[in-house]
Amino acid sequence: MIRFCNDYSEGCHPSILEAMAQANLEGNPGYSTDSHTAHAKELICAAAQCPDADVHIMVGGTQTNTVALSAFLRPWEAAIAADTGHICVHETGAIEASGHKCIPCPNVDGKLTPDAVRKAYAEHNCVHMPLPALVYISQTTELGTLYTFDELKALRQVCDELGLIFYIDGARLGSALATQQITLPQLAQVADAFYIGGTKNGALFGEALVICNDRLKEGFRYNIKQRGALLAKGWMLAVQFEVLMQNDMQLFIELGRHANEQSLRLRDGIAALGYEFTNHSDSNQQFVIFPDAVVAALENDFGFEAQYKPDDTHTVERLVTSWGTRPEDVDAFLSALADVTTKLK
Amino acid sequence: MIRFCNDYSEGCHPSILEAMAQANLEGNPGYSTDSHTAHAKELICAAAQCPDADVHIMVGGTQTNTVALSAFLRPWEAAIAADTGHICVHETGAIEASGHKCIPCPNVDGKLTPDAVRKAYAEHNCVHMPLPALVYISQTTELGTLYTFDELKALRQVCDELGLIFYIDGARLGSALATQQITLPQLAQVADAFYIGGTKNGALFGEALVICNDRLKEGFRYNIKQRGALLAKGWMLAVQFEVLMQNDMQLFIELGRHANEQSLRLRDGIAALGYEFTNHSDSNQQFVIFPDAVVAALENDFGFEAQYKPDDTHTVERLVTSWGTRPEDVDAFLSALADVTTKLK
Amino acid sequence: MIRFCNDYSEGCHPSILEAMAQANLEGNPGYSTDSHTAHAKELICAAAQCPDADVHIMVGGTQTNTVALSAFLRPWEAAIAADTGHICVHETGAIEASGHKCIPCPNVDGKLTPDAVRKAYAEHNCVHMPLPALVYISQTTELGTLYTFDELKALRQVCDELGLIFYIDGARLGSALATQQITLPQLAQVADAFYIGGTKNGALFGEALVICNDRLKEGFRYNIKQRGALLAKGWMLAVQFEVLMQNDMQLFIELGRHANEQSLRLRDGIAALGYEFTNHSDSNQQFVIFPDAVVAALENDFGFEAQYKPDDTHTVERLVTSWGTRPEDVDAFLSALADVTTKLK
Amino acid sequence: MIRFCNDYSEGCHPSILEAMAQANLEGNPGYSTDSHTAHAKELICAAAQCPDADVHIMVGGTQTNTVALSAFLRPWEAAIAADTGHICVHETGAIEASGHKCIPCPNVDGKLTPDAVRKAYAEHNCVHMPLPALVYISQTTELGTLYTFDELKALRQVCDELGLIFYIDGARLGSALATQQITLPQLAQVADAFYIGGTKNGALFGEALVICNDRLKEGFRYNIKQRGALLAKGWMLAVQFEVLMQNDMQLFIELGRHANEQSLRLRDGIAALGYEFTNHSDSNQQFVIFPDAVVAALENDFGFEAQYKPDDTHTVERLVTSWGTRPEDVDAFLSALADVTTKLK
Repeated sequence: MIRFCNDYSEGCHPSILEAMAQANLEGNPGYSTDSHTAHAKELICAAAQCPDADVHIMVGGTQTNTVALSAFLRPWEAAIAADTGHICVHETGAIEASGHKCIPCPNVDGKLTPDAVRKAYAEHNCVHMPLPALVYISQTTELGTLYTFDELKALRQVCDELGLIFYIDGARLGSALATQQITLPQLAQVADAFYIGGTKNGALFGEALVICNDRLKEGFRYNIKQRGALLAKGWMLAVQFEVLMQNDMQLFIELGRHANEQSLRLRDGIAALGYEFTNHSDSNQQFVIFPDAVVAALENDFGFEAQYKPDDTHTVERLVTSWGTRPEDVDAFLSALADVTTKLK
Repeated sequence: MIRFCNDYSEGCHPSILEAMAQANLEGNPGYSTDSHTAHAKELICAAAQCPDADVHIMVGGTQTNTVALSAFLRPWEAAIAADTGHICVHETGAIEASGHKCIPCPNVDGKLTPDAVRKAYAEHNCVHMPLPALVYISQTTELGTLYTFDELKALRQVCDELGLIFYIDGARLGSALATQQITLPQLAQVADAFYIGGTKNGALFGEALVICNDRLKEGFRYNIKQRGALLAKGWMLAVQFEVLMQNDMQLFIELGRHANEQSLRLRDGIAALGYEFTNHSDSNQQFVIFPDAVVAALENDFGFEAQYKPDDTHTVERLVTSWGTRPEDVDAFLSALADVTTKLK
Repeated sequence: MIRFCNDYSEGCHPSILEAMAQANLEGNPGYSTDSHTAHAKELICAAAQCPDADVHIMVGGTQTNTVALSAFLRPWEAAIAADTGHICVHETGAIEASGHKCIPCPNVDGKLTPDAVRKAYAEHNCVHMPLPALVYISQTTELGTLYTFDELKALRQVCDELGLIFYIDGARLGSALATQQITLPQLAQVADAFYIGGTKNGALFGEALVICNDRLKEGFRYNIKQRGALLAKGWMLAVQFEVLMQNDMQLFIELGRHANEQSLRLRDGIAALGYEFTNHSDSNQQFVIFPDAVVAALENDFGFEAQYKPDDTHTVERLVTSWGTRPEDVDAFLSALADVTTKLK
Repeated sequence: MIRFCNDYSEGCHPSILEAMAQANLEGNPGYSTDSHTAHAKELICAAAQCPDADVHIMVGGTQTNTVALSAFLRPWEAAIAADTGHICVHETGAIEASGHKCIPCPNVDGKLTPDAVRKAYAEHNCVHMPLPALVYISQTTELGTLYTFDELKALRQVCDELGLIFYIDGARLGSALATQQITLPQLAQVADAFYIGGTKNGALFGEALVICNDRLKEGFRYNIKQRGALLAKGWMLAVQFEVLMQNDMQLFIELGRHANEQSLRLRDGIAALGYEFTNHSDSNQQFVIFPDAVVAALENDFGFEAQYKPDDTHTVERLVTSWGTRPEDVDAFLSALADVTTKLK
């Protein structure tokens, strides 16, 4: 079966495994106090043009989001997010488990809008409701869409107006940067904190949290340890980011670009066959509205993920590409889809 | 100013203060191990026809809901509630602070429907989402509406089907029972646990949680203590329920009936003047759609609470009556409203 | 049975019930936004000579401690306390349930010493251990002893040195102040926050938390609400403190003095009969080392609480007096003890 | 510098990196639903002779302990542990952060005794104290000592008597099993749950939690996910345990044996030079009481970790060996120590 189910079916880029093998028996101090971690931090700060940021590498998005938000928020404070946001939907209530409500706002193409933030803030106007204190977005979003720099600046402005922390979940930041519609320094300019997702863009495990706002830095390593996210062998995470981030993020961008290219080939090929999408996506996720008969004809040979049924005869399916997606697999899918389309006419 | 702002502006029914004065210097063992507590429990179990239930008297609705739900739910379990439900809206994220997500469902006249429960349960279908484990409703609801016995039985059935706990917030149960459309034994028959609200129906402070389901009883007193809800002088809460519940809840029902009667006088009087309501209510809360000019003309002399603006020129206002509402205050309001109505025509 | 079991067996001083009756039907705004609360705050700030403090009245010590510490501490921060401290021993892990470790230190006569604080702080010296951030003491202590002003200043100095918050649990502050060895302004001068215990000194329910340190004030009411500690009828708590605190705390001191006087009569009478104490106490608790035969001879007629067995034939028993203890009950006890003593010789 | 600082300075055994490289591009389903995970589980269950156990592989000891204990305990329940236990000392209050008190008991050579458990249980005897519900031990202990099978059975019996869960932290289980004084099936026979530590015995990252008691299994994967411990690429953890556990744990035991052998060479060599130990250890940790002059003479060339000063002129130092410790490094240490010893005489 050819899988477009997700972007974490493969392990890591071979050059990362090589670097890990090389560092394997060096003998490094534990708990991210080693020189690889320091070097990865330097590379990341340089690439993001935020020399004073703190960088902490953890394992996995849910962990990173929980460690960050639980450190940033006071007990009665809440996070504002799009109702499609990962923390609202797919983290088993991890943010709530750390004591904080996620306030879901209606999304526009998977994005949170300044107006939605203002409205949520205005509605939470007394001590009988949690105090909104943080804006959470994902870049790219869970629907594959991308915030433009203008959109990010507009959200930053709302945060400044209302005294909110601006946090960006970068599980798919590789795909976002590879679109060339946004840069890492732009992200660092608007965000109080964000993370660079390794797991979905070439690393084995690893997300690098970048804390730009000084106020949010204090005591953070305690929170990492307390929540079980401080690895004894932290240097083995750092090594991966050394590889991805060296030469101004060359490999990180390259892998994101490959994923995007295959995704756009899927998108354009599918569109050419007359199918529609829930929204436009330039990134590595496509959400197609397929007739159920098409799904039935393809699902034995190709893996993709059903989202919901917009009506009785159609299903929205998610197709995801990754740094490891083979072009010939995209060809195979498009060819099979063309066949099915002809047959079902 | 004549207030219809809420149902907790007064202290308690005078007979309760008298009973408290009588018990004041008796010398009772602490932490609800006294005979008043035992007697209150007996009266409540008898009235609810659930002889084996556990009864715990606490102070305040948010406290009772939090102590109950945090004891009933495992860490990864969530509560399903109407989006107007008190735990979703007006408890400052207390349930989330205890680690549990509240899943808000679209309400129908303030009520949660079996279909909404089924849909929420079906959508939470994998380990990446919290596991729905409890259905929360308020009787009467936050919009003043009432679940009929048939509606309650239908919710019970969904809970049985899906293995959910059925919990009923009875902050305004006095008003509910006083409608005579539902009885306490009926409630105890369908619910795994519910509470009888004293604060809003004649008591000074006090909510009596009734746990019908044996599985939910174990260790509960530890949770009360841990969450700061076990009063040293618990008998002073119990005394209040002794008064309210004696003679088959005579005073409790009487006070609820008084509140409802004044509310219905308001309702019918307002309707007769041509104003509309967001929904029909037989209980002690009415939600009226007033032109803003009417609000402006009344708000200096009468207290009520703005909810939201359905359009640019109207506001939904909540009017609440209580056991202490004076009939002449209702008269005064209706008369003032009649004047304003004539004037503004 | 004559009880010296605790100081919360009676309800409240009759003048408090009277004041509550008077305020009962006034019609007050809810959630401690009323004028009684404002007035109680004024009286407390004046008595403590800290005009800018915030005052929040809650119900019960465990609740007050939990709401305070959970607001004051960041997630990875811990409280340092004597191993006899209430938060370490008798709150069912409430502080831990709010996420914070209590670091128990060896007590000296129930007190925490500056050296013990320094040692605990020094031992918690890396991210693998929680960060000590708050010093908790009880005044008077759980063993009936009292911190002198010099001792409090020494603890304040350690807190300043190490950047710790100084928090004082005043469940039995009435007894402490009534010794005339410490004053309320002295307490307010050293503490970042403390509470004035009403429940154990004449009030029905109620503890008044005083936050002196500006940094700890922000958002506090949200935390009160979130933890179920914001009473709808908050004015009924405030009324009690109005009575206790008026005329420069006249009644509050008077009630504490009565309790202490009866306790000292017990102490001196028991000592005169040749029995020893675990430690000297000028406050309303005495810890006597009784032969088991004495206990057996008295326990049917008198209530007191066994603490532990220092050897096979003795038990340490706690005797507690209160504002409601009758002098003739003390006489009866001493007389019975004298008889038993003679008999057993 | 030659390091005996810890057992996680190296990455992983080369054969593990090879296996990871082989599985790298296979394309596996995510979140531990893959065949490697199933196979690792089979191998572990076979080795432990508990065919019906659940196995969950996580990353790191603090994470594993927290996910396990927070799932096993009700909110008001506490864990009993030796005061040297990892959860009491070196997890930044992670268990408390999940809401549960750790009750520290005086250790005997780093071990928890049945008597200590009984005493702790007896002392927590009312709702004002958390309810002890779980016994936590580490095998080997934090002091390098080992529970014999008889000692484990005695603890099991106490757990049965008192209704406690028996949980064994196996961060250093490799070293324990390699002593041949205890077997994995024996462990599985007494424990309700335990984990097999990979990180400190040849794996890159990874701890395999084994849940033997059916009652503790339900919903566990939700808790893993909620606490950020469910890896997208879980198969990459499983692959490591496939290597370690194949052929009846051949590599796992072999690596532990190597560590122990080097540790015993250190121990016997040091003892031969006349130095004493805080306690006897057959495992990979030795705690030596060195004169400070010896420490000063060695610490530039050798890494070890100061524990505490038993008097003014001595320091207890921990020396740890691992699967990667080179015999020649042990030789070098013993030779240097011999020189220093001679010189300082």
